[in-house]
Amino acid sequence: MAERNFRQLLEAQWEQGKFLCVGLDSDFEKIPEAARQAGGGIGDTMLAFNRIIIDTTKDLVCAYKPNPAFYEAHGDEGWKALRATIQYINEAAPEIPVILDAKRGDIGNSNIGYTASAFDHLHADAITVHPYFGSDALASFFARKEKGVIVLCRSSNAGSGELQDLKVDGVPLYQIVARMAAGPWNAQGNCSVMVGATFPEELAEVRKIVGDMPILIPGIGVQNGDLEKTVQAGKDSRGRGMI
Amino acid sequence: MAERNFRQLLEAQWEQGKFLCVGLDSDFEKIPEAARQAGGGIGDTMLAFNRIIIDTTKDLVCAYKPNPAFYEAHGDEGWKALRATIQYINEAAPEIPVILDAKRGDIGNSNIGYTASAFDHLHADAITVHPYFGSDALASFFARKEKGVIVLCRSSNAGSGELQDLKVDGVPLYQIVARMAAGPWNAQGNCSVMVGATFPEELAEVRKIVGDMPILIPGIGVQNGDLEKTVQAGKDSRGRGMI
Repeated sequence: MAERNFRQLLEAQWEQGKFLCVGLDSDFEKIPEAARQAGGGIGDTMLAFNRIIIDTTKDLVCAYKPNPAFYEAHGDEGWKALRATIQYINEAAPEIPVILDAKRGDIGNSNIGYTASAFDHLHADAITVHPYFGSDALASFFARKEKGVIVLCRSSNAGSGELQDLKVDGVPLYQIVARMAAGPWNAQGNCSVMVGATFPEELAEVRKIVGDMPILIPGIGVQNGDLEKTVQAGKDSRGRGMI
Repeated sequence: MAERNFRQLLEAQWEQGKFLCVGLDSDFEKIPEAARQAGGGIGDTMLAFNRIIIDTTKDLVCAYKPNPAFYEAHGDEGWKALRATIQYINEAAPEIPVILDAKRGDIGNSNIGYTASAFDHLHADAITVHPYFGSDALASFFARKEKGVIVLCRSSNAGSGELQDLKVDGVPLYQIVARMAAGPWNAQGNCSVMVGATFPEELAEVRKIVGDMPILIPGIGVQNGDLEKTVQAGKDSRGRGMI
């Protein structure tokens, strides 16, 4: 069997007109009573909740995006649930890529550990990463050609501009990051960028810079990103390119 | 019993002339055969190795610094070893603070999960965080007054300047981050910064900006940071301030 390839999996979903990505940010405290299994622990409950979401949405989505923050809050039991969730997606919907929304970023030696964790232990197809340490630090991620490396460019929080809008020779920092991600950092062709749906103007600027590169666009839903504006600003030359 | 306070624990170690921080970056593949327990799994072996290091160094150090990357590579078993390692430090050397070198950075809602993981589940006394998303994203860390929040300022890798040296109105980005961390981000008085020992000139610039704030200075050892230059550049007005 050929190795799973993030970009190919994604393109196949786009081909079917699917652009929705469901976050699996399973805050244990907010899981409805109905999803709690009799006698099950935290990990079992999180997994049972995620399975319901996956079963209900797997014909509609182009990707799933679990965020380790919500699992790490419960330590090793949470990690077990995270791995089991990705395993369940791989079994129940093997055609749908999984983005580990881990926002990792360390120096090279430590990123080797994060690379092993995301791709070899958890079996995710892509990961989100911080650009602040530069591209040499991210080498172990970039080296995995078949995986997606999604560089955090413009985050969806209200105060994201505090650093990301700072101007370097007249150009906002988030656009400098987009240029790097679409240029020298993309030597293996497996780079993407993330821009929050809460900033459609910035999203349009990034689309101009990155061409037809995939853009992960979180922030529709509880964060109230505008869906229509987002699609107008985010689509690529083929009317695709959005997650 | 009063809650452990990172800054107080650290000052007490500095008072005794201790400035050394030992990283617990326990790469399983590099653990010597002698430290492998007969019949023990990965987690047991990592913990056994860490216990030897802790027993041998606890009279010499001002802090321990485990990096989750090396534990996450082994999933939930690694996480169990990480928690057990910090628990062992808290028992064997309760006076020594533990810095979780997690380099986390997400939006506020997710950072609540990372805050719970670092401080409530793992019982670390401080955490390293990415500045890229801005201070609103880091609110859940800052709110924990008794914990240390160490903002990544200038990383120790060779290519760290790729973003960190970019000039904003003539000032390098890492200095802008240091100004924010020492100024508005430090409303609770629990902020510190990190500057790699591989860049003594940049360290001296950051010391000028942050006054007597603690600076975490990784990079002595395998990364070949110069100890004498680092101490000259890094010490505060009291001849302290370094981890």
